[in-house]
Amino acid sequence: MNSEFLKKLQDISGDSSLITGSSVKERKAGIWIDEPIGASAIVRPKNTKEVSQILALCNESKVEVVTHGGLTGLSQGAIANKNQLALSTELMTDIEEIDLYGRTMTTQSGVKLQTIQEVSEQNNMFFPLDLGARGSCSIGGNASTNAGGNKVIRYGMTRELILGLEAVLADGTIISSMNKMLKNNTGYDLKQLFIGSEGTLGIITKLVLRLKEKPSSENTALIACDSFEKVKKLLKHFDSGLAGSVTAFEVMWKEFYTLVTTAPAKSKPPIRQDYPYYILVEYSGFDQKIDSAHFNSLLEDGLEKDLISDAVIAKNTKERTDLWGIRDDVEQQFRLGPIKIFDVSLPINDMEAYLENSKKLFAEKWKEFHFVVFGHLADGNLHIIAGVNQDDKDSMNQIENCVYEPLRDINGSVSAEHGIGLEKLPYLNISRNEEEINLMRTLKKSLDPNNILNPGKIFN
Amino acid sequence: MNSEFLKKLQDISGDSSLITGSSVKERKAGIWIDEPIGASAIVRPKNTKEVSQILALCNESKVEVVTHGGLTGLSQGAIANKNQLALSTELMTDIEEIDLYGRTMTTQSGVKLQTIQEVSEQNNMFFPLDLGARGSCSIGGNASTNAGGNKVIRYGMTRELILGLEAVLADGTIISSMNKMLKNNTGYDLKQLFIGSEGTLGIITKLVLRLKEKPSSENTALIACDSFEKVKKLLKHFDSGLAGSVTAFEVMWKEFYTLVTTAPAKSKPPIRQDYPYYILVEYSGFDQKIDSAHFNSLLEDGLEKDLISDAVIAKNTKERTDLWGIRDDVEQQFRLGPIKIFDVSLPINDMEAYLENSKKLFAEKWKEFHFVVFGHLADGNLHIIAGVNQDDKDSMNQIENCVYEPLRDINGSVSAEHGIGLEKLPYLNISRNEEEINLMRTLKKSLDPNNILNPGKIFN
Repeated sequence: MNSEFLKKLQDISGDSSLITGSSVKERKAGIWIDEPIGASAIVRPKNTKEVSQILALCNESKVEVVTHGGLTGLSQGAIANKNQLALSTELMTDIEEIDLYGRTMTTQSGVKLQTIQEVSEQNNMFFPLDLGARGSCSIGGNASTNAGGNKVIRYGMTRELILGLEAVLADGTIISSMNKMLKNNTGYDLKQLFIGSEGTLGIITKLVLRLKEKPSSENTALIACDSFEKVKKLLKHFDSGLAGSVTAFEVMWKEFYTLVTTAPAKSKPPIRQDYPYYILVEYSGFDQKIDSAHFNSLLEDGLEKDLISDAVIAKNTKERTDLWGIRDDVEQQFRLGPIKIFDVSLPINDMEAYLENSKKLFAEKWKEFHFVVFGHLADGNLHIIAGVNQDDKDSMNQIENCVYEPLRDINGSVSAEHGIGLEKLPYLNISRNEEEINLMRTLKKSLDPNNILNPGKIFN
Repeated sequence: MNSEFLKKLQDISGDSSLITGSSVKERKAGIWIDEPIGASAIVRPKNTKEVSQILALCNESKVEVVTHGGLTGLSQGAIANKNQLALSTELMTDIEEIDLYGRTMTTQSGVKLQTIQEVSEQNNMFFPLDLGARGSCSIGGNASTNAGGNKVIRYGMTRELILGLEAVLADGTIISSMNKMLKNNTGYDLKQLFIGSEGTLGIITKLVLRLKEKPSSENTALIACDSFEKVKKLLKHFDSGLAGSVTAFEVMWKEFYTLVTTAPAKSKPPIRQDYPYYILVEYSGFDQKIDSAHFNSLLEDGLEKDLISDAVIAKNTKERTDLWGIRDDVEQQFRLGPIKIFDVSLPINDMEAYLENSKKLFAEKWKEFHFVVFGHLADGNLHIIAGVNQDDKDSMNQIENCVYEPLRDINGSVSAEHGIGLEKLPYLNISRNEEEINLMRTLKKSLDPNNILNPGKIFN
């Protein structure tokens, strides 16, 4: 990155918006990463026009660009090297419009998810996307990784919450598809190209988000269940009993539940720890009294049908927060020594056999190992915490193989909601076939012929 | 299409699957079109492999291919000429799997929508896509036009109901992305390329559909309203009162309501005909008694707040069917003489001004004209029935301009749910900018370099 190039960048973005030299190293490469940012400069455009000019310059100069949102990604999708320029959307934080009748919010891509949630709330609306990194992640990052979270069964992934989008292509062309309607069938739905493609096909600069009306009741229960067959039946029991509107259906396997309800974990077990499965089920409705009565009758019915072994209902917001606190205390995993946390998805019907197969592979290799499971079961999404008390690269690779390989034959996914980035690139071929990966390459080549946008991520 | 080519086609598909010569002309070009199919042959593959072989042959021979589903499209997306081959999916009617726990159905693309609805029903599940042509249209056609319908506000367009998909590219490559999970972020979401692209980027051969749990209550009311401002407020009133779960919110402008409730129309007016707006609102819930009480309380609340001038509630299925019968009696439009029915979408806040602008353009050109409006208001989707008592081409073009041009400045859409096809191609640039259309061309060129798949549709 020579000085002439940096001078041109500065001319576009202004002095204060360009970070170079040792100042770059003062920033960490990710909020969960200790190393500094690897790029040799960070440019922070304020608007779409600047993004366009920067990309046109980079494309001409063949300088590679890695887009930075909140740097909360879990798959090394925003890692940059010293030949690359980091483009941060941190100054693109305008919320341009809230349309209460169209139920949309129009924003720049650097706005934090939590801000979007709060501004929605202030307008008595609701943006359903939610995840642990809400306070740091940007909505542009959520879009480019198609973020998931706890309420996908009811509200869909980020993709389903985006009505319109503006992105800049590698050559600086601005693609403005700022649709605000639920229905618009005028040719190809171009926004889909940029959602979930991890910054490899364009840089998202603006979004039209779909807001929802805010539910006015919360109904939450923790349920113990004595077989996986019953877990599956309970999902149907609740979702059909709620006309397909279950808001969350999270499952914790015994080992996870025990881990997060045993000191030093702060939660105590609301139900004793010897059941094989624990379910956190939630329904957000429209009238607390009516909904509570109906939700409780579904629980009672489940007990009568012997689908439920034991259950605790949250009677107020504090109890609800406490139940979610159990599910969300993922930090306890670090008590298990060196571990790796996985984010796989697979058909619900295949889960039991898959977990057995994977566990068998662990048992064949190691005498002692950790294999702790929880996840968004209704979405087919399991998180597996696996460790073998060793953290050398070879052990970690072997662990990955034990978790990923059994997914191959059942059309499972090596990344349910975190994306591929650099980290899962070697395993992409487990979930996507050769023809699919070739088609991805075709798209990449036709949209970014100089390969300047986040090159080397997702696939080679 | 020479005999050598036809021979090769026959070798792939077998004798009985190829229709040539005068037999082609025995079939109509569309279920609402009087002319015969224009293609010189129709090939009817039975499976993906045959589709792949056919396309490889066509690509090599540079023979253009127009895919035929149920031929119910409204935008001339499946019109073929004498140099083109029609590929019909009518023999691809296998339903391969229903997964009651994963809530998915895996089908070939030639299955009729109504069959999918019925098979879902038989399994106590629910496929929410519904439209008038259900008995004739194929799910592959629904997918490739991203069909809409009455329940989009609650359940989304066809796009949102597809989890996985298999398609064949122009050169015969099979892209199999038969994902069954709600979450799968492993690289580009390739299925999006084929949904809504009207057969120009590939031929859809299989689908994994998302099924929903069946609601067990229906709550329907017809409401009269004396201002558009109140119509907008009522949408929020109901959707927020139902936690964002309104199932349908259809609006009829006075002229439409009068047309469909005046003899010879079979419906009588359940509410007198002198209000400016009539709303058909519906909520599908989980318990008829609870839901009726809540729905009625929302109606009463709306009356108290003076949002509602008059209302009729359906007390049983017959009354519900009758209310929908009013909304669905679109055939009455033909009493207005030569007319054209439009399918536009635009932000709800812009609707009043837009309709006034468009009407003004009519008034400037014609002394007498029909301008009758109804639609899926919550989706931003209006259908406008317009006529000037003339059916010459020039008049029709002028009518189109009066409806479409005022959409340009408000980011409106010339096709909410019907697609572009040949019919709306001249107006695509009202809803999509030059950069977007160029990007569509880039995609088309990279996926179909010989331009054999439904060429000349959507854009040139």
